[in-house]
Amino acid sequence: MTALAPFVEIICMEFNVARSIEILSATPGTLQSLLGNLSEEWTTSSGIEAKRKAEIWSPYDIIGHLLHADETDWIPRARIILGRGDDLTFVPFDRFAQFENSKGKSLAQLLDEFGRLRTENIGILRAWNLTDAQLDLEGVHPELGRVTLRQLLATWVVHDLNHVRQVATSIAKRYEAEVGPWKEYLSILSP
Amino acid sequence: MTALAPFVEIICMEFNVARSIEILSATPGTLQSLLGNLSEEWTTSSGIEAKRKAEIWSPYDIIGHLLHADETDWIPRARIILGRGDDLTFVPFDRFAQFENSKGKSLAQLLDEFGRLRTENIGILRAWNLTDAQLDLEGVHPELGRVTLRQLLATWVVHDLNHVRQVATSIAKRYEAEVGPWKEYLSILSP
Repeated sequence: MTALAPFVEIICMEFNVARSIEILSATPGTLQSLLGNLSEEWTTSSGIEAKRKAEIWSPYDIIGHLLHADETDWIPRARIILGRGDDLTFVPFDRFAQFENSKGKSLAQLLDEFGRLRTENIGILRAWNLTDAQLDLEGVHPELGRVTLRQLLATWVVHDLNHVRQVATSIAKRYEAEVGPWKEYLSILSP
Repeated sequence: MTALAPFVEIICMEFNVARSIEILSATPGTLQSLLGNLSEEWTTSSGIEAKRKAEIWSPYDIIGHLLHADETDWIPRARIILGRGDDLTFVPFDRFAQFENSKGKSLAQLLDEFGRLRTENIGILRAWNLTDAQLDLEGVHPELGRVTLRQLLATWVVHDLNHVRQVATSIAKRYEAEVGPWKEYLSILSP
């Protein structure tokens, strides 16, 4: 393992609220730049039967999911932790809520709503001015058990990037058959 | 396989120059939004020994790679195909050139250069007004053999998305240890 030490040492970052806010602030603009001017062919999966839709999310589905998470997951869970009430268990997060909630909304609307809500949520996070002691406070995840506020906020950041990655993948796969023999060089097209 | 048919049918898109330009145009702004305001901790891997650097690219390395590809790969190769000269074999692409070429440049400079060059290249592509017959023309890839102009241009699009995805992954992995038990839910952190 010695050979890996320089990588691990330099690439792993310690959690930091200000650094986290850099990523959280960048996400709406990133998705707006990526998706804002694309034809619907790239961004939706209308017509796919519901069961498969739940497996293979379109960019449209993913933005609805990010919006729902900003509404019901990160800040509400942080509030449960910081509130120190009798029950520190989080409300389970519905990972499929966007299939109902987004109905009738355009992608542009979802991107706008997400951007607005994210700005609000970052304002709340910033105003908390969290101390290390607060970041160490725990809540209870319904499946994962005890987790700290620090882990919740780090997960918010990585969750954003996870879905930026998923948007890129969802778009790229539409051209899977078109790249011909280059497919083997493009890891985004591997199953 | 019948159950998969609706997905394949709807999600696979046929190659189209205008649709491709939508993605190619979006990439520089996407990367600017994602990376433009991040601390260097998120974007570089300075100090990593060269051998591992070649394996694990930082966002900084990836932007240098995209810039180099716009300089030496897509349009130059399309010119070889469209030129119909005696030798239709592409010049091999150096996938590690950025480690030399980017030296002394800031990430902001690389992002600017990439954005400018991409705008130029899209202008060239648009002005060609390619016909289906031209898109069917072939060149010879040094490793993959005969490929069409259509496949080359589709690969340009997917290559962009592949590296947007890689940038997101490179950033996310820096918080791998910080998310605690949530790691199992975040596919971006799987090896």
